[in-house]
Amino acid sequence: VSQNIVAVDTMGGDFAPDIVIEGLNFSSIRHPDVHFLLFGQESRVSPLLKKAPSLASRSTFFHCDTVISMDDKPTQALRKGQETSMWRAINAVRENKARVVVSAGNTGALMAIAKFQLRTLAGIDRPAIAALWPNLKSQSIVLDVGANIDADSKQLVDFCIMGAKYAQALLYKKRPLVGLLNIGTEALKGNEVVRATHNILKDLKDLDFEYQGFIEGNDISMGVVDVVVTDGYTGNIALKTAEGTARLVGTYLKNALSSSIMAKVGVLLAGTALEAFKDQIDPRNANGGVFLGLNGLVVKSHGGADGLGFSTATDLAINLASADILEGIIKDLNTLTFGKSVPEKVEA
Amino acid sequence: VSQNIVAVDTMGGDFAPDIVIEGLNFSSIRHPDVHFLLFGQESRVSPLLKKAPSLASRSTFFHCDTVISMDDKPTQALRKGQETSMWRAINAVRENKARVVVSAGNTGALMAIAKFQLRTLAGIDRPAIAALWPNLKSQSIVLDVGANIDADSKQLVDFCIMGAKYAQALLYKKRPLVGLLNIGTEALKGNEVVRATHNILKDLKDLDFEYQGFIEGNDISMGVVDVVVTDGYTGNIALKTAEGTARLVGTYLKNALSSSIMAKVGVLLAGTALEAFKDQIDPRNANGGVFLGLNGLVVKSHGGADGLGFSTATDLAINLASADILEGIIKDLNTLTFGKSVPEKVEA
Repeated sequence: VSQNIVAVDTMGGDFAPDIVIEGLNFSSIRHPDVHFLLFGQESRVSPLLKKAPSLASRSTFFHCDTVISMDDKPTQALRKGQETSMWRAINAVRENKARVVVSAGNTGALMAIAKFQLRTLAGIDRPAIAALWPNLKSQSIVLDVGANIDADSKQLVDFCIMGAKYAQALLYKKRPLVGLLNIGTEALKGNEVVRATHNILKDLKDLDFEYQGFIEGNDISMGVVDVVVTDGYTGNIALKTAEGTARLVGTYLKNALSSSIMAKVGVLLAGTALEAFKDQIDPRNANGGVFLGLNGLVVKSHGGADGLGFSTATDLAINLASADILEGIIKDLNTLTFGKSVPEKVEA
Repeated sequence: VSQNIVAVDTMGGDFAPDIVIEGLNFSSIRHPDVHFLLFGQESRVSPLLKKAPSLASRSTFFHCDTVISMDDKPTQALRKGQETSMWRAINAVRENKARVVVSAGNTGALMAIAKFQLRTLAGIDRPAIAALWPNLKSQSIVLDVGANIDADSKQLVDFCIMGAKYAQALLYKKRPLVGLLNIGTEALKGNEVVRATHNILKDLKDLDFEYQGFIEGNDISMGVVDVVVTDGYTGNIALKTAEGTARLVGTYLKNALSSSIMAKVGVLLAGTALEAFKDQIDPRNANGGVFLGLNGLVVKSHGGADGLGFSTATDLAINLASADILEGIIKDLNTLTFGKSVPEKVEA
């Protein structure tokens, strides 16, 4: 399959299909060599495509009768079956008609259908969702941010391998630094699972990443490592806590800068600099969670994203499509299994 | 014991006793009716007291031969025993000579000695550390932020009761809103422990707080509830992640505002407003973790705090000293136990 073909579920997300088409149009202007396979309801998408000429000229549309709603439970989504736009978009990756699929649809449904159709990579028990996290130096990758509610040591080691490959592909790090999230940096800290994982990781050899040991919550934004590994419960809470904190600090600043005439004049003068700052903390510029551990690439946009946010997730998908990330994961999983470094399954 | 007597371990913390004496002097000026019992090494504290006249005139000094170091493990700290400044400061609370104790010393040692001397309240299995968290509306209380690495349902319910009493005392909320931290707000989300806890809490009656159900990480800074309850592993990571994020955003802003002449002039004009903003995100203004669940009040300052930070923790201790927080916790625990609402022990 061509690296330049991206499948899209145009009906997923709180403001679909409008913001999906708007976002894809932005991306198609930036990436004129990419072709999009669009899955959705014709009556809704067709009028939007007329106002998105760049996208229209670089896409093929496939009408789908049904859609997965944002409230559908994973089991309901699976039962709705093969005629939904989400199912068919993922199926395009399965059938090698597209290299990657993007959806802003509901996470549980997307993961369930993706697992059902694409299956996990040999050696992987559970896929993880990896998020990009801005830091002082550039960006890091944090996983799992919510595919699972827990993880044993074997899975956390898998997350390290998958996260490292993602960092190689997207952050251009040859040997990414990987850290295990914990409540202290001493070997005795934390629960049994993280301590057992630490004991496995510190002895691993022949892998393409550098294990840096435990890191703490504040180290994530400081950019101490390129890849932060944790279970899906902790990772989801950390990610959302950071989003809330950035929003709080942004609001404090806005209120402060509108508190006096002098401050308002100051804002006028510092306008360009403040705009650059706003872009840096704009969550739309870090949108896009990647499902790692499946036989195919799936990118999840935030469900509440606007057009700019959706185009960020789409650009991420396009970047990933040109990298051999799955092949790299398989190679390192094989090194791990046959390199006798770690038992097949480590119980927590 | 008088509500106005505060015991202080002057030797705990990275920059002790210097910053401790400096911070206490600030607090003694703001609270001239408070008397301090100071425990530490005379040769080190005495010269500092000469330069802190307000504190010197409102304190009694007790020489202690030994100190707990920041690296001592809890067991080592317990073995060092009764002549350390930390032990004796806590002992002043135990013997009703002080109402509350403050230390910037190492958390594990402080908790171990406090548990040993003060014992947990009847009905409480494990104490928790509660932190103040700035939010869009004012402040909330988050616990546990690191006393334990996990928690079962019984303990999480206890944390709700203790956190609510703390919110009543410190935030002046008559019926605080309490939320359980989770990765989604639907009843089916999360691990077994949080779901079991939710099922207990939603049916509880006759308690002085309003249970609001699950909240997510981003809700903490938005101030959706007054009290956020979670296990010590998750709470610690959330708190430190928020600190790191606030620091990252602050650095982005600083870099942006020094990026051009125009921006620098803007900063001059907006100076007062930006100073107010800086104060809002200054972690020194939210310093102070409270150990809840013991027969006595213990306030932990950040080990790396400076004088301003230590005085924030001291002011917190002074405020708590005048509230009947322990009595309130005991009352609600009794309501809970004898009110048949919850089984003695719920296994996760």
